[in-house]
Amino acid sequence: MKIVQAAQFDLRRDVEYGSEEQVAIVKRIVGDIKAEGDAALLRYTESLDHTKLEASQLRVTDAELQAAYSRVEPSFIEAIAAAAANIRAFHERQKRNSWMDLQPDGSLLGQIIRPLRRVGVYVPGGKAAYPSSVLMNVIPAQVAGVPEIVMVTPPATGGREGIDPYILVAAAEAGVNEMYRVGGAQAIAALAYGTDSIERVDKICGPGNIYVALAKREVYGLVDIDSLAGPSEIVVLADETADPEYVAADLLSQAEHDELASAILVTTSERVAEYVSAEVERQLSLLPRENIARASIENYGAIIVTGSLEEGIAVVNRLAPEHLEVMVQNPVDCLGLIENAGAIFLGPYSSEPVGDYFAGPNHIIPTNGTARFASPVDVDDFIKKSSLIQYSKQALLANAATIMELARREGLEGHARAIEVRVNKEGAARRAD
Amino acid sequence: MKIVQAAQFDLRRDVEYGSEEQVAIVKRIVGDIKAEGDAALLRYTESLDHTKLEASQLRVTDAELQAAYSRVEPSFIEAIAAAAANIRAFHERQKRNSWMDLQPDGSLLGQIIRPLRRVGVYVPGGKAAYPSSVLMNVIPAQVAGVPEIVMVTPPATGGREGIDPYILVAAAEAGVNEMYRVGGAQAIAALAYGTDSIERVDKICGPGNIYVALAKREVYGLVDIDSLAGPSEIVVLADETADPEYVAADLLSQAEHDELASAILVTTSERVAEYVSAEVERQLSLLPRENIARASIENYGAIIVTGSLEEGIAVVNRLAPEHLEVMVQNPVDCLGLIENAGAIFLGPYSSEPVGDYFAGPNHIIPTNGTARFASPVDVDDFIKKSSLIQYSKQALLANAATIMELARREGLEGHARAIEVRVNKEGAARRAD
Repeated sequence: MKIVQAAQFDLRRDVEYGSEEQVAIVKRIVGDIKAEGDAALLRYTESLDHTKLEASQLRVTDAELQAAYSRVEPSFIEAIAAAAANIRAFHERQKRNSWMDLQPDGSLLGQIIRPLRRVGVYVPGGKAAYPSSVLMNVIPAQVAGVPEIVMVTPPATGGREGIDPYILVAAAEAGVNEMYRVGGAQAIAALAYGTDSIERVDKICGPGNIYVALAKREVYGLVDIDSLAGPSEIVVLADETADPEYVAADLLSQAEHDELASAILVTTSERVAEYVSAEVERQLSLLPRENIARASIENYGAIIVTGSLEEGIAVVNRLAPEHLEVMVQNPVDCLGLIENAGAIFLGPYSSEPVGDYFAGPNHIIPTNGTARFASPVDVDDFIKKSSLIQYSKQALLANAATIMELARREGLEGHARAIEVRVNKEGAARRAD
Repeated sequence: MKIVQAAQFDLRRDVEYGSEEQVAIVKRIVGDIKAEGDAALLRYTESLDHTKLEASQLRVTDAELQAAYSRVEPSFIEAIAAAAANIRAFHERQKRNSWMDLQPDGSLLGQIIRPLRRVGVYVPGGKAAYPSSVLMNVIPAQVAGVPEIVMVTPPATGGREGIDPYILVAAAEAGVNEMYRVGGAQAIAALAYGTDSIERVDKICGPGNIYVALAKREVYGLVDIDSLAGPSEIVVLADETADPEYVAADLLSQAEHDELASAILVTTSERVAEYVSAEVERQLSLLPRENIARASIENYGAIIVTGSLEEGIAVVNRLAPEHLEVMVQNPVDCLGLIENAGAIFLGPYSSEPVGDYFAGPNHIIPTNGTARFASPVDVDDFIKKSSLIQYSKQALLANAATIMELARREGLEGHARAIEVRVNKEGAARRAD
């Protein structure tokens, strides 16, 4: 693993947003679903997913769900249930209350928090169908109070017959109410516009291929969407007390995701730098996904040696990584200085997979330097807020002159008159009291 | 004002996202600023804003700010200060704390809330330079704790020499630290990429023309941006107790904004419907902005009569308006049924301009039906969250088997090994204890 200067290193990678041809294909699919509904949905499911269905077969039945439960190991069901309980407990802490302020002049101001009514979660087929990602998308919505959570996923997963039973079980454990066997841009369009079989949603989330991503962009505004996830990243900040075997294993757990994934060590210790470099090579050769991990390490991996921990933290803040592990003597002491990191793992036992699968915080985290301004998926992503104003007559009359002055300053006489018409009537009424 | 059936009416309007030519122009400007920095910024300021500046003249000086204060009426300064105090007080209620959960196994989970470091606020020139919008963009950022808030605005406002002094005073009262006389796509690009004179920001907000909107889209991902605001809307929900003069004045205060603005009355009372229709006509003829308001009322205005209040609320939820006024006998009784509305004004004294200028809640509110899933601008728009995980050795060893099972189920052996390497070492160490 190469040792580089901090200044040379930039974590940002170019993320593909699709070719003109792909955009055109997606626009056509979305337009057809909007115009024809189920008919187009079934047609594209046949032509693109090679599955001929009737409208009545789109929804996954209870019997299929029961069958899925019987096809997976009991230990998997237990593991998913345990992870789901932790994820639920963590996200429960993020719930917020509506509030109101009662003013001495009789007015009331407030903020109402409501869950979205209906959310669609896309789950890709193929190798990227991760049960853990189902939990991470569904549970925050459920904790937010979203009454209707819908999953869509291609009719066959990873070359198998039908939908992967592990995905079905994870969705059921997470609390999905409805599941449909549709995928691709056609599924996104069905969620956004609604068809006879699939009622439209308020928000669509979950990862997918480039056609899914482009379709989400296409329908954004009509519904909300989550943000586009880039390739995954880890930065490990380590001093001389860090265990190089742990550091190397954690770097590789990220690198094995994707050839575009990035794994970076920032360390104050030359010894740790060299040891980790050698250890990465040793562990790499033993990994089933060696080719992917090696490409990631060679193209987007780096070891950066800094003169001090403060300098190392400055590098971290510049990189703004998705995942940050802090393996130094007193990790909590760094927290005040770490400005930009999506998820922070402290100490030797907080290996990133602890968070990917189990601890409770969400594993959908801002990538590609966007932790500077973005946040992990959470309950806030599934609520909406309404402001509330109830002014009393007293409050209106007391502040009318100020409001009218501001409105007239902006040339909006109609705004001023909406106040004035009340002052003329109520002010007079008050004088007559 | 026309009386229509609910089913006929759709609030959504097509919002312009720019022609191909405009997109190409913006891409070129953004590319030039990225490549050349200040040199391109000054060149575009000369060619597009007809103002020749040196780099040293970009920043607004303290002396200019003092001069602005001396050019505006003391009553305006007082009005802006009073509004700012209300807006600040309301947004203070939205602040959130970092939190942590300490587990009995010694682990710690938490969520860290931090303000963004640096935010840019765009203020348009011309007639759309509203002091109130400066407050509504800046104060939530300031309350969130953003240490650096930068305003950019074209070098001349509304045909005047220099920047409108009312804008400068509003920005200073709101708490802007730095102000620059640059506008258009070139200002957005400078904020996103940074130049020698203007340091790059983490988020850009504030309204602007189509070039500004396209430039924000172009730099999104590198920085955060706010959402695209569509034309403004009001829906008034009224029963037979509503005062038709008030209803008409409030509808017109929205209609005068923009020919694309929409003003809709939903009422259970035929009498109120007819009275409001006549009253709108009477008040329209007295408005300085009659032409704009009339076009809005004719094209996007409507009166919808419903058989019951519940039916009226169903119409409101379908329209999901930016502003909703509830002028019925017991407005609070409706609150539980209103699902979709950006800001809710209850009772006869809560005219929309009360909220536009003064009461405290933000006046930047989701438009075009997006209140179904989006929220008014608030403190949350200027923070970022980091998840925090510190697992204890005990917690890791107790849950290792579950984590490894889930990782291996997903085919991610590297993830499992990051746990296993610790179990092998620490488990062994524990057995030796």
